[in-house]
Amino acid sequence: MNEHVAPMLPDWQVSRWFNTEGPLRLSDLRGRVVLIHAFQMLCPGCVSHGLPLAARVHQRFGGEGVAVVGLHCVFEHHEAMGPQALQAFIHEYRLRFPIGVDVPSPDGPIPQTMAQWRLQGTPSTLLLDRQGRLRLHHFGALDELHLGVAIGQLLAQPHAAVIDPSRNEADAGACTDGACATSQ
Amino acid sequence: MNEHVAPMLPDWQVSRWFNTEGPLRLSDLRGRVVLIHAFQMLCPGCVSHGLPLAARVHQRFGGEGVAVVGLHCVFEHHEAMGPQALQAFIHEYRLRFPIGVDVPSPDGPIPQTMAQWRLQGTPSTLLLDRQGRLRLHHFGALDELHLGVAIGQLLAQPHAAVIDPSRNEADAGACTDGACATSQ
Amino acid sequence: MNEHVAPMLPDWQVSRWFNTEGPLRLSDLRGRVVLIHAFQMLCPGCVSHGLPLAARVHQRFGGEGVAVVGLHCVFEHHEAMGPQALQAFIHEYRLRFPIGVDVPSPDGPIPQTMAQWRLQGTPSTLLLDRQGRLRLHHFGALDELHLGVAIGQLLAQPHAAVIDPSRNEADAGACTDGACATSQ
Amino acid sequence: MNEHVAPMLPDWQVSRWFNTEGPLRLSDLRGRVVLIHAFQMLCPGCVSHGLPLAARVHQRFGGEGVAVVGLHCVFEHHEAMGPQALQAFIHEYRLRFPIGVDVPSPDGPIPQTMAQWRLQGTPSTLLLDRQGRLRLHHFGALDELHLGVAIGQLLAQPHAAVIDPSRNEADAGACTDGACATSQ
Repeated sequence: MNEHVAPMLPDWQVSRWFNTEGPLRLSDLRGRVVLIHAFQMLCPGCVSHGLPLAARVHQRFGGEGVAVVGLHCVFEHHEAMGPQALQAFIHEYRLRFPIGVDVPSPDGPIPQTMAQWRLQGTPSTLLLDRQGRLRLHHFGALDELHLGVAIGQLLAQPHAAVIDPSRNEADAGACTDGACATSQ
Repeated sequence: MNEHVAPMLPDWQVSRWFNTEGPLRLSDLRGRVVLIHAFQMLCPGCVSHGLPLAARVHQRFGGEGVAVVGLHCVFEHHEAMGPQALQAFIHEYRLRFPIGVDVPSPDGPIPQTMAQWRLQGTPSTLLLDRQGRLRLHHFGALDELHLGVAIGQLLAQPHAAVIDPSRNEADAGACTDGACATSQ
Repeated sequence: MNEHVAPMLPDWQVSRWFNTEGPLRLSDLRGRVVLIHAFQMLCPGCVSHGLPLAARVHQRFGGEGVAVVGLHCVFEHHEAMGPQALQAFIHEYRLRFPIGVDVPSPDGPIPQTMAQWRLQGTPSTLLLDRQGRLRLHHFGALDELHLGVAIGQLLAQPHAAVIDPSRNEADAGACTDGACATSQ
Repeated sequence: MNEHVAPMLPDWQVSRWFNTEGPLRLSDLRGRVVLIHAFQMLCPGCVSHGLPLAARVHQRFGGEGVAVVGLHCVFEHHEAMGPQALQAFIHEYRLRFPIGVDVPSPDGPIPQTMAQWRLQGTPSTLLLDRQGRLRLHHFGALDELHLGVAIGQLLAQPHAAVIDPSRNEADAGACTDGACATSQ
């Protein structure tokens, strides 16, 4: 997705964080490339492929400018995937990167961030550049080589680009209207 | 484990069954080779290796004399692995073979069958011959080739061996005293 | 393949042996279960799947009654797969089990044993019981679990079955006429 | 390796090309990111890991500015890995990217380009930026994610950077003296 048209991703709505010292906002990560892995703990594709890949990115490139964040987007089997179950899952699978719980919706099964970002399901992978713009949005298994190239391209971009806050707001607004949805 | 000294495995204690029409007893499977896979739904080794292998045995040899049974032996994170969570897990991972829930113990974290059979943890694989005698007991990842050879050896044994019920009882008793524990 | 109709496999024709102290005859292996892996050193499926599986069987069950033998059946690219090239290949891939070179045919590309046994190509896997009867013949990738079960079934058969030599000859003859071809 | 100190890689010495219409020079690829995979056809690590990864890069990013080139650097078993054998290998493994044969040395087993580039063995992976500077030099298995990130970083660099030919020569000279050897 071209950087000039890529929308800002609006912030997540998170009810609880794991592996952080306190609440994390998307804007806290500005200046770093951000990999967001939206998953469910009982989603086989997430467990066998998506989460291990996210963990590898965190382990190898976490210290080199890539922030990895998991987002637990429960849209089915809600009773089996509450925060307590997620905590056990994170412990058993030794996940070390920050993981937030997407806030349930009062109106239906789709949690709030998942709905706002118009995710198609889990696993979904989102990649943001250092300015917070959405540059990759992929639903399903993501090829490791492809992800590596995308991360490398964003890492190579200059750190210190000036962001115009008013422009951010406009982008975020556009995104709420659906323009940030997917690149598919 | 030599067939002449192999003990009978005493029956499981199961509080709830999935993928069966009714309660299943070990003695119902007499005449077939029985593969029991003791697992926990949040045990990474079970999810990545043990359960897929059990499912393959069920799929390929279920119609040729091998009965595959899963036993959910929850000894940690009990609150995250209740029957409702297990039901969602079975659905998402498309497990088709009978799975029973090991009855929790009133005295501690180890469920009753797990304690009686002296399982060391999950995944544990038990293999019984057509007479119900314990012939293989393995804790941890079990090599596919090794499991295949063991199953083949038991399948090759005669179907119609006469079982002396009184002898079964004696064997079962011996096993309760610990003789059936492990082959390790 | 039922043991009562399974033909004896006629002996291989081998021009050179590797990993043996001298020429090996099929009859030398009588009393053991025999796994024959027919391969070519430039056959991708052999290199990635068949040979590693044969090596695992050799390593784990070579001491328990299973003889593993490789047969280099070159039917294409003859100039690139001569004995000297094979020797380098065996060295680099650290293959430890006996490997024979199927004798080239004066009349065409198919070597002599491959023609006599009517192999469809490489990799081909043949499994013989302790009496030398062909019990499994598979062309293409062979599932590890399936191979394990087949080996286990043959290992479980009695060692000391009396073989009627006249019957063997008849079987071998039948096989030369093509009856032993494949179980597919 | 920092771009300001990265040396130019001197051209390869190739006796024969496969999968090209004519001889290929390193300078022909200027403007593209170049992945060079130095291998031997009887090197297990090359066959199982390095070549498939190079083929994936060629397939997915060949049309997006990445040139993949194989270099057959035979330094052992020369008699088994001649050009005719390599041709059969390329055919059987369905390799589609350009592959050159490193020119044998009159003085010893190490071929000429391998010696000049001071490769430690096979597989070796070299990555050049659009200006032909050596940016990654790795001996052994290379992690797919790591390679992807490195390629992405180089792809993100501007296409049209002006190259000062005199500077190139100086760099090439330095490299001949050994400065380009390895980043290890």
